[in-house]
Amino acid sequence: MRGILVKVNGKEYQSVWLENGRVKMIDQRALPFEFKIIETNDWMQTAQAINGMTIRGAGSIGAASAFGMVQSIFSANDKNFLKNARIAAAGIKKTRPTAHDLFFAVDAVLGEIEKSDSAIEARAMAKQMADKIFWGYVESGKKIAEHGNALLGKNARILTHCNAGWLALVEWGSATAPIYLAQRKGKNPFVFVDETRPRGQGRLTAWELSQEKVRHALIADNAAGHFLSKGEIDLVITGADRIASNGDTANKIGTYEKAVLAKENSVPFFIAAPLNTFDLKTKSGAEIEIEHRNPDEVLFVEGQSGKGTQRVKIVWGKTKALNPAFDITPSKYITGIITPEGIVKPNRKGIAGLFS
Amino acid sequence: MRGILVKVNGKEYQSVWLENGRVKMIDQRALPFEFKIIETNDWMQTAQAINGMTIRGAGSIGAASAFGMVQSIFSANDKNFLKNARIAAAGIKKTRPTAHDLFFAVDAVLGEIEKSDSAIEARAMAKQMADKIFWGYVESGKKIAEHGNALLGKNARILTHCNAGWLALVEWGSATAPIYLAQRKGKNPFVFVDETRPRGQGRLTAWELSQEKVRHALIADNAAGHFLSKGEIDLVITGADRIASNGDTANKIGTYEKAVLAKENSVPFFIAAPLNTFDLKTKSGAEIEIEHRNPDEVLFVEGQSGKGTQRVKIVWGKTKALNPAFDITPSKYITGIITPEGIVKPNRKGIAGLFS
Repeated sequence: MRGILVKVNGKEYQSVWLENGRVKMIDQRALPFEFKIIETNDWMQTAQAINGMTIRGAGSIGAASAFGMVQSIFSANDKNFLKNARIAAAGIKKTRPTAHDLFFAVDAVLGEIEKSDSAIEARAMAKQMADKIFWGYVESGKKIAEHGNALLGKNARILTHCNAGWLALVEWGSATAPIYLAQRKGKNPFVFVDETRPRGQGRLTAWELSQEKVRHALIADNAAGHFLSKGEIDLVITGADRIASNGDTANKIGTYEKAVLAKENSVPFFIAAPLNTFDLKTKSGAEIEIEHRNPDEVLFVEGQSGKGTQRVKIVWGKTKALNPAFDITPSKYITGIITPEGIVKPNRKGIAGLFS
Repeated sequence: MRGILVKVNGKEYQSVWLENGRVKMIDQRALPFEFKIIETNDWMQTAQAINGMTIRGAGSIGAASAFGMVQSIFSANDKNFLKNARIAAAGIKKTRPTAHDLFFAVDAVLGEIEKSDSAIEARAMAKQMADKIFWGYVESGKKIAEHGNALLGKNARILTHCNAGWLALVEWGSATAPIYLAQRKGKNPFVFVDETRPRGQGRLTAWELSQEKVRHALIADNAAGHFLSKGEIDLVITGADRIASNGDTANKIGTYEKAVLAKENSVPFFIAAPLNTFDLKTKSGAEIEIEHRNPDEVLFVEGQSGKGTQRVKIVWGKTKALNPAFDITPSKYITGIITPEGIVKPNRKGIAGLFS
């Protein structure tokens, strides 16, 4: 089955791709108001795009990082290719500390470069590995769709948080993949879409769902608990930025809240993620570094006025804010993890089984 | 001790007051960007101000409703004063279904009018009762401050949701009252202020706290769980819109989420409320009607741009939203209720004791 991608003016897009040494990506800061493609000419511009959230979402960041590594050796020669690649690896790794896919992708491509004897060979090997990672995400989305679809009955009501759609995983998405497949199979799902302050990625999810004509409604993050307590939600599915070897999961701030509330109301809570999101070296959530982003993300909101996209300050001038971008959901709140290899229990045994 | 009121241009203000038959109120829609006073000439305008959230907060709504009832018989004569008052009572009750103070205040003033033999007597009696309710709130805030202050140690870190400050209770506030008193006593509290989407009342709380120089930071509603799980919050205090006789509490959407998360992390969760918020006729939260407000409150955000206050649409054009304005926090998540008569357990016995 063809993946889930957006059609704009009759053309289908992936969230990111490599073209003639340039990384091209859908500008996720401009969406859902404006659809535009950003190009980066070198790894530094790619790193900047990741850091500034022009591109976001674990899988899309993973693919972009891999492509950034390829860029790092495009202009390199036999003398400096390895040094260049190592500088790029360190630079890209600094952009987003929590997302594991980024570290996985950078190290995988760097590994190929380190094995190469010349810049020419390194370029070929790096490109091959980056392509493998990229198409691996596409394949992961498709398989997650199939495994997750089994969880969705007719008219299933799903809560999701942040955007773990095809924008976040090249095609299909992680959390949204099962929903898209259920929709195509005529199951008529309904999605409660958390707004996901501060950055409001719920609007990306809502926009994606609209493209696939999936029924949905945006809700304030504060309302998720209410709908869970009223029995109006059958299950929760979110993506992940990093999954420790014991199943503890780092994901967008607020995921932990929704997981606790789901458990309290006996509603199953699932994480959907490709294998690259698993960080086997991290034993538990306590070891995961949480990214704190600019407080301005809390203090300002972007939206459309009559005059195009506008940024407004939502507070009194001197008000300060704290802005943790992720939180840790301990594995005890997670019913299962939907992976390309099947749905596993969020514990060491279940996760180790994926890699054996 | 003088209550906590805001000083603007050297003048102290209450959130609402009655002056020559006009209800005057601080425009809470304009805050924190602009400070302005709105006047209403009759009960219908007052009802509109309540419905449109020009004035909000359980106590401030209670006082405004009482004043609206007084307005209803200002223009009445001996023939129609009772009929007028009953029409006004029905009209004011339609504005906000969840807030109990509104129903309490309307019925209390209507009761005085019903006992009166003439419009002149009714006016006097209604005015007297409205004043009693109004000053009762001021007194309640002061007493809540004293009882709640006992819960706050030096450098206490408090999470609050919505605005239950002096804007919401004429003076002092309910949830904020203990914090203001602790600050004046040199305890140096720190407040985590939930943004409180969709309407963003956290910015009112942040603005109030700034006036009193209380240390604080605004956080996305999604981040409260994170800080609770990290042990960075010592206790939670929120206000209430209606408290059932078993302690179940209706308050701003999201309160239930924070209460569940507080309990999950063994952090005490307190409700602060005047006696008028207790609804003894309602046996449990299941009987409380939840107000669903215009979805535009979720789809649009107000803030400041370079050109003054602006409203921006935060989603793609066709995205729809659901907007429950309140939720129910079952009493099992509530550690205690801070009332003017002391801190009581959230159960039938504790609550009945307040009224015996």
